[in-house]
Amino acid sequence: MIASEIEIDIRFSETDAMGVVWHGNYLKFFEDGREAFGKAYGLEYLTIFDKGYFTPIVKSEIDHKAPVYYGQAIKVITRYVAAKSAKIQFEYEVWNITTGELSAVGKTMQVFLDKESRTLELLTPDFYRLWKEKNKV
Amino acid sequence: MIASEIEIDIRFSETDAMGVVWHGNYLKFFEDGREAFGKAYGLEYLTIFDKGYFTPIVKSEIDHKAPVYYGQAIKVITRYVAAKSAKIQFEYEVWNITTGELSAVGKTMQVFLDKESRTLELLTPDFYRLWKEKNKV
Amino acid sequence: MIASEIEIDIRFSETDAMGVVWHGNYLKFFEDGREAFGKAYGLEYLTIFDKGYFTPIVKSEIDHKAPVYYGQAIKVITRYVAAKSAKIQFEYEVWNITTGELSAVGKTMQVFLDKESRTLELLTPDFYRLWKEKNKV
Amino acid sequence: MIASEIEIDIRFSETDAMGVVWHGNYLKFFEDGREAFGKAYGLEYLTIFDKGYFTPIVKSEIDHKAPVYYGQAIKVITRYVAAKSAKIQFEYEVWNITTGELSAVGKTMQVFLDKESRTLELLTPDFYRLWKEKNKV
Repeated sequence: MIASEIEIDIRFSETDAMGVVWHGNYLKFFEDGREAFGKAYGLEYLTIFDKGYFTPIVKSEIDHKAPVYYGQAIKVITRYVAAKSAKIQFEYEVWNITTGELSAVGKTMQVFLDKESRTLELLTPDFYRLWKEKNKV
Repeated sequence: MIASEIEIDIRFSETDAMGVVWHGNYLKFFEDGREAFGKAYGLEYLTIFDKGYFTPIVKSEIDHKAPVYYGQAIKVITRYVAAKSAKIQFEYEVWNITTGELSAVGKTMQVFLDKESRTLELLTPDFYRLWKEKNKV
Repeated sequence: MIASEIEIDIRFSETDAMGVVWHGNYLKFFEDGREAFGKAYGLEYLTIFDKGYFTPIVKSEIDHKAPVYYGQAIKVITRYVAAKSAKIQFEYEVWNITTGELSAVGKTMQVFLDKESRTLELLTPDFYRLWKEKNKV
Repeated sequence: MIASEIEIDIRFSETDAMGVVWHGNYLKFFEDGREAFGKAYGLEYLTIFDKGYFTPIVKSEIDHKAPVYYGQAIKVITRYVAAKSAKIQFEYEVWNITTGELSAVGKTMQVFLDKESRTLELLTPDFYRLWKEKNKV
């Protein structure tokens, strides 16, 4: 299992009138998590783009466990989830560092689109197959 | 089954570098959908707040079917989904009005928190039970 | 003087932990204002793009006069401000419809970039000169 | 002159359909800059809140010099600007670390509101006067 971690300070603009982080912002934290994973394991958005693909999110889920308040910091753990088909899947844990509580868990699924035609790639792209072999996932 | 509809113009700031609406913004469209539903059926955020409750989102899901480009408009259909417990559940359809395509479907679940203590309300609040009876859901 | 008006419902996600609309979101309201102006006067973003230009914002200012709370609605008045050079300038007023108060005023300036080369257009593009003549501005 | 610096990775969600950082997001970078300044000099949002005040932004300006693309990183320099009256003023420089170019400059002005009554504080609060003396500004 391969995973990465990143710590994030909450922006004031990410809070809402309940005084906590607005629920939709967790998708930004997942994005930060993917980015950190990509840097750690050589699967960055721009690398994929250079190989000829966009990898849009086609599915996302968030389960909220505890709120995060302004002034608190979070840690996002991003775990790669293997799939047979031409997909990139991650699971996330968002920890409230300040309280030690698990704030949320979530999942995303990405597919490969040819960057010119924007058509769905049904077969695993070569570079991604090699990446999987190299990382034994 | 009770539901509401709302049309939304895409903001330029809601697009991303792929030229389409950034996936996380669909949670804002779901929010607009809930708001429209609340106005239509008397279950607005501020009404609930006046009854003594916050109703934070504890679960959300988005399934993306087709992108939405800047300059296109969308329609959000928000459908109330009955639950026995003290929860508010909705299902959403986001239609691309310009292309006629279904762009995304999704779900959210909300719970009731006492607005002073911020503790979870395990029993269905009276006002919500009455609302459900009145709307036969 | 040519101007347009648009009414906007505040999203819950646009509020912050002070319980009011986060200051930066006014730039989204200005964007909505420009969009409404563009529709009313034939100067839409996509029209300009079809003529071969991007028109990025190079300058923006916001003066806040009074907060806007969740549950309140706003009206944005967008006024075209003439300039001799190859620029698009607007002034904005954001009114809190619920309270009748002026919430903010602001300004933006846009320039023309060739959409292929992304270089600055120093001369007023033909289509824009014609638009100005037609609208006597 | 007292100032602080912070480096920020651009989020994909912060880009727009022109492929660059959406102009309004610079106000989030200024927020990150103020936060970094607050941590460095003991003038954090929550410290001010504990002293009994909100400090909303009442004025902001952004001058854009050069775009920032996804995959690039920025540095925000936040400089305190002294004022005689009960205000907090900052000037910002946003540098594109990847290209070495100055991307934007800007300013913000904040006032003090009593956190209970939300009325404007016309006199410099004691804690802020002491902070200014200590920092010789």
